[in-house]
Amino acid sequence: MSEPTWINETLYPGWGQRFAVKKELARVTSDFQEIVVFESEHHGRVLVLDGAIQITEGDEFVYQEMLAHVPLLTHGAARNVLIIGAGDGGVLRRVLEHKGVERAVMVEIDGEVIRLAKEFLPAIAGDAWTHPRAEVIVGDGIDYVRKAPDASFDVIIVDSTDPIGVGDVLFTDEFYENCARILTANGLVVNQCGVPFMQSEELQQTSLRRARFFPRVSAYVAAVPTYVGGFMTLGIAGKGEALAAPVPVAVIAARAEEAGIGGHTGYWTPEVHAGSFNLPPYIARHLPKPDLG
Amino acid sequence: MSEPTWINETLYPGWGQRFAVKKELARVTSDFQEIVVFESEHHGRVLVLDGAIQITEGDEFVYQEMLAHVPLLTHGAARNVLIIGAGDGGVLRRVLEHKGVERAVMVEIDGEVIRLAKEFLPAIAGDAWTHPRAEVIVGDGIDYVRKAPDASFDVIIVDSTDPIGVGDVLFTDEFYENCARILTANGLVVNQCGVPFMQSEELQQTSLRRARFFPRVSAYVAAVPTYVGGFMTLGIAGKGEALAAPVPVAVIAARAEEAGIGGHTGYWTPEVHAGSFNLPPYIARHLPKPDLG
Repeated sequence: MSEPTWINETLYPGWGQRFAVKKELARVTSDFQEIVVFESEHHGRVLVLDGAIQITEGDEFVYQEMLAHVPLLTHGAARNVLIIGAGDGGVLRRVLEHKGVERAVMVEIDGEVIRLAKEFLPAIAGDAWTHPRAEVIVGDGIDYVRKAPDASFDVIIVDSTDPIGVGDVLFTDEFYENCARILTANGLVVNQCGVPFMQSEELQQTSLRRARFFPRVSAYVAAVPTYVGGFMTLGIAGKGEALAAPVPVAVIAARAEEAGIGGHTGYWTPEVHAGSFNLPPYIARHLPKPDLG
Repeated sequence: MSEPTWINETLYPGWGQRFAVKKELARVTSDFQEIVVFESEHHGRVLVLDGAIQITEGDEFVYQEMLAHVPLLTHGAARNVLIIGAGDGGVLRRVLEHKGVERAVMVEIDGEVIRLAKEFLPAIAGDAWTHPRAEVIVGDGIDYVRKAPDASFDVIIVDSTDPIGVGDVLFTDEFYENCARILTANGLVVNQCGVPFMQSEELQQTSLRRARFFPRVSAYVAAVPTYVGGFMTLGIAGKGEALAAPVPVAVIAARAEEAGIGGHTGYWTPEVHAGSFNLPPYIARHLPKPDLG
């Protein structure tokens, strides 16, 4: 056998993961970024944006379940959900699984990501693209939240790249201020805050920023196999009382039952959900203290 | 700047992590394995055995704390502790932090690992090597448990390499049978069971094996930054009632307070401890059902 070709993730200069490439399926330079899709040895197909692994077929369930189910079931009565980014469609699919969600709007800036996901990663979104409760917009998420009416969404899910490149404009004061404005009284916004072991400033800075516009700022963790470096952190901020106290496991389980989520997840459970808010000290110390903000 | 030298982990054939090497400090072929110690860009010094990353100065606290504190505080009254492997001394150091531990015996087969750890990774063990309650033996852990008296240890911690190479003899029926014999009535044995996303058969097979000799078999998870692939699983098995029901957070906290552990950990907390037994479904399905064994 000949030596395989390897793709090295270039997220961090001196450390990272590499994949043996069974077959490169697409390599496209869009108006926004370089997009690569390849077939790997162990993880199924892999989507890479500007050298950073975004999703693999093998482990996408971890990230998607935690990014979608945790805010929706922490809220408990979300009907209108806004998703920014997440061009592979996996978050949209998980949001639509919730029976109570009447409308899921997804705004992805890069139409090429959607096109390539539909062609090469069709299982990740399933039939979400054409779901009657879904609205898929190719456009600028910043602009969308700027123009959206007050109190029009219950949950906003920001599935961005890291705050370098395309994603950096999502981590501004203006963006979070608009998020707070367009959320309903008990609304929640969640966004990925990187892997604190490698990128602690990401959690720290976005948490401080969100604390300017939201009375409650918290975070929870997920161990995503191909976001290497230990736990990744998902930052969550709320306007009302949804984050005032931990939601008991029994309440989460009852909400999941009513939403139709229980029993077919690979990572999320009510216990994992509740436990994910218990941060290891090395992560917790990057969150703002309650008296800040 | 010239392109750095990279060390690729070779644990899995088509995927893995790589480190830029600032300086190689040692490369030794012992009677048992190839040992490499190098200085990395982000993780401090790194110990590699037969191509598999064992420990880095940057994240060793995650693995060591979870491997030591969880069984000791789940047991609650451990006085005699046996450690097999763990040649870097980090587990020994954490075990000795528990005031109630009267004797910690460490049996490491490869004296070269200890020698190199003392020379190049002295902060990991601290003063554990010469601690009055510590007994460090260079020898065969299999043989040690074969000859140890009945009911002579309260907790056995097996910090082995994966069940390939040097570590494979630790995953046998004979070994677990002897562990059960030399444990006290409420005794616990813990061992690393790999990263289930990549090595699910490791958790499955060792759990089935332990279930032959222990009435209670369970597992808990830790997100170790450089054991890439999501959660690693630590298998735990007990003779008595220590694993019969989850230990409440308040009880764990009280035991930690009494042991002198609280407040200076980087990953472990009573809440993280309790939550680590709530396995994601993709991991839980590899554990034997209660009616097996």
